[in-house]
Amino acid sequence: MSWTSQEVRLAARPTGRPDASTWEFTTTQVPDPEPGQLVVRVELLSLDPAMRGWLNDVRSYLPPVGLGEVMRAIGAGRVIASAHEDFAVGDAVSGMFGVREFALSDGTDLTRLDLDLAPMGTWLGALGMPGMTAYFGLHDVGRVQPGDTVLVSAAAGAVGSTVAQLAKAKGARVIGVAGGPEKVAWLRELGLDEVIDRREGSLMRAVRRAAPQGIDVYFDNVGGELLDAALANLARGARVVICGAISSYNDETLAQGPRRYLALLVFRATMQGFVVFDYADRYPQAVAEISQLITDGRLVATETVLEGGIVAFPDALLGLFDGVNIGKLLLRL
Amino acid sequence: MSWTSQEVRLAARPTGRPDASTWEFTTTQVPDPEPGQLVVRVELLSLDPAMRGWLNDVRSYLPPVGLGEVMRAIGAGRVIASAHEDFAVGDAVSGMFGVREFALSDGTDLTRLDLDLAPMGTWLGALGMPGMTAYFGLHDVGRVQPGDTVLVSAAAGAVGSTVAQLAKAKGARVIGVAGGPEKVAWLRELGLDEVIDRREGSLMRAVRRAAPQGIDVYFDNVGGELLDAALANLARGARVVICGAISSYNDETLAQGPRRYLALLVFRATMQGFVVFDYADRYPQAVAEISQLITDGRLVATETVLEGGIVAFPDALLGLFDGVNIGKLLLRL
Repeated sequence: MSWTSQEVRLAARPTGRPDASTWEFTTTQVPDPEPGQLVVRVELLSLDPAMRGWLNDVRSYLPPVGLGEVMRAIGAGRVIASAHEDFAVGDAVSGMFGVREFALSDGTDLTRLDLDLAPMGTWLGALGMPGMTAYFGLHDVGRVQPGDTVLVSAAAGAVGSTVAQLAKAKGARVIGVAGGPEKVAWLRELGLDEVIDRREGSLMRAVRRAAPQGIDVYFDNVGGELLDAALANLARGARVVICGAISSYNDETLAQGPRRYLALLVFRATMQGFVVFDYADRYPQAVAEISQLITDGRLVATETVLEGGIVAFPDALLGLFDGVNIGKLLLRL
Repeated sequence: MSWTSQEVRLAARPTGRPDASTWEFTTTQVPDPEPGQLVVRVELLSLDPAMRGWLNDVRSYLPPVGLGEVMRAIGAGRVIASAHEDFAVGDAVSGMFGVREFALSDGTDLTRLDLDLAPMGTWLGALGMPGMTAYFGLHDVGRVQPGDTVLVSAAAGAVGSTVAQLAKAKGARVIGVAGGPEKVAWLRELGLDEVIDRREGSLMRAVRRAAPQGIDVYFDNVGGELLDAALANLARGARVVICGAISSYNDETLAQGPRRYLALLVFRATMQGFVVFDYADRYPQAVAEISQLITDGRLVATETVLEGGIVAFPDALLGLFDGVNIGKLLLRL
């Protein structure tokens, strides 16, 4: 037997926002697995800001997606056929399946998901790459300490909401920045000490007001104006964690960069970038800690699941940049 | 008896380059020292890029120079009258005397200079604040290791030339950037592995050519285009030391900032600022090491001494931004 799988391929590299010309829908037949292989039916597709970077033909931490290749994406689903001794039909797994409905795999880099511990969506969010990004960025790069003042951008997003809650659990004072009253209200419910609506008034003044003693850790997912506002309001010895810059990912030219970077000198501060994949051997430790916090009710794992199937992928990806999501953004296939 | 001392005061905060309206020359009578005091005749005045920052009315690592106050400056000279038990007439000292010919001091923060070890000018250069800046920036912030590729900007300046030679002494491969053939030739004589003339061609390409394996440590004194060229050519785990940004100190608006800062993420790199005064308790260690390198002929301490006395101060300061100096820039009073 075989499975008819729709796939989304990169048809043309976008300048600026991806549009219809960026993608090509193709159909392929996924065959029965040969010995050592298995077939996964992808149920949930992860939408991540990093995907935009993978479309650019530049040297980065991963090679760009090639023209004509299936778009790189993380997904989760169930094994529906297996000739692999480690996986049985019905197993829940996640992996870098790409934007496709059915994936043939040799088992390499698959993660087995314990759905008794958390539902499948959470394994793509707080217990998946965004959660790992939050955990290692905050602890290893940000070196957060109890009593620190932590500023988190895109705080209602998958990474940001996990950072904010991990920082609270560590005993930090947490200031979140998000766009719009719905996200602000949600973050207040999560117990953040201060929430700034980035659409209201001056970011520079809002950050100063929220952190009169200065920011010890700024976890930056957005870049742009907020990064400058954070730099201008650092505490001495602050750590600025560069996780991403979603505000500029669709820019057609290189953004202007942090104009206030000399604040690093004034405040004896550090700005450091990281890539979560470097911490892969310690994911189990992070999963154990985060899942314990979830079990204890100290960390709320939230996902926004879009319906519509694989044909909705192009719009779903744009939704990420428009900030439609609270928590992790997923597309149900 | 008393001494007639000319002084340079801040008359108006400059926007852009300081000019005649920035300064006011005044004359004061410096009296005989009272018990616990001494009088220094300032012989050499240190011209430092940081002085430009001290003119701006912004929060920084030191308060700004106040309007009407004597301009802050480091100087060196000899004690000409003393009622202080620790200092005798004839002692050579350095300190934050300000731009004045004679300074009354209570001895606080004076450094006694051993002129048998090095001449007075060197105590304001390789053995003074620029040397300390180079030493702690390269070792403590840049964490240089043997075999590293080190890029140094303003490499013919007081800090840069010391950084370059300290890095060579540590066993690093050193690339210097400077402006004009005279400085380039001088740096080649010092034994740098590669020297880039920033006035010739594309900095981005020149850095890539000089460091095909990437830069492990970038010691940044200039900011601007060279900082972006360095960021685009980092090695994994690189350290970018933010010491200053002389290219933008006279800008009337905030410069655009390092547009390539997301390279910190791609290369898992760190950008860190520092202020040399934080390392004051370890200056003796740095002085001992640098003076030993000078004695061994492994580090050349160079100064450019301008003549003309205190009235030449405004032009001398501008000379710093025009890059008239090789090594440390001093004004003889």
